[in-house]
Amino acid sequence: MENLENSTDCKETVSPLNNSGSILNSTVSRHDGKAMGFVLVHAGAGYHSESKAKEYKHVCKRACQRAVDRLRAGGLALEAVTAALTELEDSPFTNAGTGSNLNLSGEIECDASIMDGKSLNYGAVGALSGIKNPVLVARRLLSETQKGKLSAGRIPPCFLVGKGAEQWAISHGIPACPTEKMTTKFSLSGYKRNKRKMELAEQVETKRKRQSCGHENDFGCLEPVRDIMVEGEENNSACLDTVGAVVVDREGNVAAAVSSGGLAMKHPGRVGQAAHYGCGCWAENARDVSLYSTAVSTSGSGEHLIRTMLARECSTAMQAENAHQALLEAMQNKFISSPFLAGEDCVLGGVIVLRCCTCGEAQRSEDIQALLVEFLWSHTTESMCVGYMSAQDSKAR
Amino acid sequence: MENLENSTDCKETVSPLNNSGSILNSTVSRHDGKAMGFVLVHAGAGYHSESKAKEYKHVCKRACQRAVDRLRAGGLALEAVTAALTELEDSPFTNAGTGSNLNLSGEIECDASIMDGKSLNYGAVGALSGIKNPVLVARRLLSETQKGKLSAGRIPPCFLVGKGAEQWAISHGIPACPTEKMTTKFSLSGYKRNKRKMELAEQVETKRKRQSCGHENDFGCLEPVRDIMVEGEENNSACLDTVGAVVVDREGNVAAAVSSGGLAMKHPGRVGQAAHYGCGCWAENARDVSLYSTAVSTSGSGEHLIRTMLARECSTAMQAENAHQALLEAMQNKFISSPFLAGEDCVLGGVIVLRCCTCGEAQRSEDIQALLVEFLWSHTTESMCVGYMSAQDSKAR
Repeated sequence: MENLENSTDCKETVSPLNNSGSILNSTVSRHDGKAMGFVLVHAGAGYHSESKAKEYKHVCKRACQRAVDRLRAGGLALEAVTAALTELEDSPFTNAGTGSNLNLSGEIECDASIMDGKSLNYGAVGALSGIKNPVLVARRLLSETQKGKLSAGRIPPCFLVGKGAEQWAISHGIPACPTEKMTTKFSLSGYKRNKRKMELAEQVETKRKRQSCGHENDFGCLEPVRDIMVEGEENNSACLDTVGAVVVDREGNVAAAVSSGGLAMKHPGRVGQAAHYGCGCWAENARDVSLYSTAVSTSGSGEHLIRTMLARECSTAMQAENAHQALLEAMQNKFISSPFLAGEDCVLGGVIVLRCCTCGEAQRSEDIQALLVEFLWSHTTESMCVGYMSAQDSKAR
Repeated sequence: MENLENSTDCKETVSPLNNSGSILNSTVSRHDGKAMGFVLVHAGAGYHSESKAKEYKHVCKRACQRAVDRLRAGGLALEAVTAALTELEDSPFTNAGTGSNLNLSGEIECDASIMDGKSLNYGAVGALSGIKNPVLVARRLLSETQKGKLSAGRIPPCFLVGKGAEQWAISHGIPACPTEKMTTKFSLSGYKRNKRKMELAEQVETKRKRQSCGHENDFGCLEPVRDIMVEGEENNSACLDTVGAVVVDREGNVAAAVSSGGLAMKHPGRVGQAAHYGCGCWAENARDVSLYSTAVSTSGSGEHLIRTMLARECSTAMQAENAHQALLEAMQNKFISSPFLAGEDCVLGGVIVLRCCTCGEAQRSEDIQALLVEFLWSHTTESMCVGYMSAQDSKAR
């Protein structure tokens, strides 16, 4: 870890897991002196082409810097994680906010959620169009929840979708943004290419069905059609590139957030894990000193991450003594070999995880805070782009 | 339990839990001979006026009968639970399908979900308008998931919302239904009354704010405004009346479903627990003989049920030896005193739970199946309307 002033210990391990299909990286960082906080971000688990990887590294670094700026200014985890997500959403290269995948109708519909480990409050939006930064709507929903009931005792919503979510956002001062402004030449060309691919696949399917009625020997002449989900062509590697971040602040509070444009060519109205409680992100402050505070953000095939509730499962697993081993086991048992995904041939996903505890000294003196932060990421996909930074660092890594 | 032919043991206990605020009922039923299945339904946890309670009893009985008809015809749990839900949704008295609460804009937006314990597949719709039986869309999403990938390798959605969900339903042969046909005179009069109440509450709030700037002593003259959430007036007791059912079939498969019109006067686009994985319903067949198969359906304040993931929590708890004790503890620790609801003054909810296992004899002989079914319901609300019936019974109870 670069330039980690005041740090007494920092080791990084990179351990591809054999015989399982998931790759795991973990790093332990001990912050002594004035612990100011830490951020870990991701720009999705998937396939990242060389040219895109470079852009992704830049946006991850910028997102870390934005979060750290807030932490240094005294901001709490929730503010810092929102700042990181806004930066990730604003990049035209990520599949979140501007540059999101287009759905079957050629429209952008975003999912996002945020969770505050201190209050355990949560806000989420699904299938949201016309708002540049979906995470700001999720964040505002969370804030409104904390204000208590609405008029006549109505409970404020924590999850809004579609047109209603857009109207709510605008009525709460979040500016509207025309879809055209959020659409990039990459997302548009990806859409056109995927549309042709789907049409071809459907023609092949129709031909196959017709042939299977009478001419089975003609099977071999059908052209193979590549999957939209697993393809990795240049300019179209954004299929799974949900973005997210986890943060711990100077007080040891954790927060997590996630944002996604969803699957390319998804059906309008489809909501993925990024809007799903327990599936897209999770943050939970330690309730007593024997526990860790944990924050998790996920990326990958939304339906698989929903059905396995991967964010919450990883958070729960992180209470085990050995974080590295615990995450490997969680990815294996709760995701890759999960009974909830029995029959699925291709389980694609990744997580970033942060856990932390305050050390002995911290409990003795308020002036000297020591925060033990462990951060890990694991994915079953070819690659996962992450960045991390401590508030003591001069730049992100 | 009435007319439980072939039953060797059936005891019912009713145990209001002191010092906690939740009420629990549990029943154990042992089905020998040809076990044909069992259904437990609910028409919501809330306040039920005398006149409505009668209607609710009738609809619960009809829903049980519909499910049992399917079970007797050889249908599996998933079919039976869908049949029960359709009946519950069609009642103009329940807050689901026809007769649903109207939202702030005077529209109907429904949430529903269904889970199959055998495949662990799941389907859900949120903020769905224009479809008479939302559960049929959730069920169809589940079925489509089981068929494998869409063209070009796209993963089929398990959760659709809003206009996109409506379009998907219609394109899959589920007929559209104009909102006017789903609106009843009760839901409309409730809407008008609530609207006036909200306007009054907002006037009071404005007056209070104005007074607090200069005339604090005038506070006392403000009229109290009753909450929409906790009020129990005649014709308007449907606020929390989500409906749901849990079923076990002759093969020991479980299934669960839930459907809701959501909170009265909710913001358009608000999605409650009925569409939320792990929160509205849960069904999980036992993966080995040492475990129970469990099915759960919840009702109550959607946001509270989401943040506590009550359906899944209750399912997990049901693996304990003493089901009765386990549900009491789950309701207390995972709901009423949940750290996720710290600061909430009024935690309203209810669950119906079914767990079952095949007895020793069943494993020896395929002809003689003995199914031990335990069913329980618990609620923090004033009342909860439930009905249950075995496929051997001549009528529901």
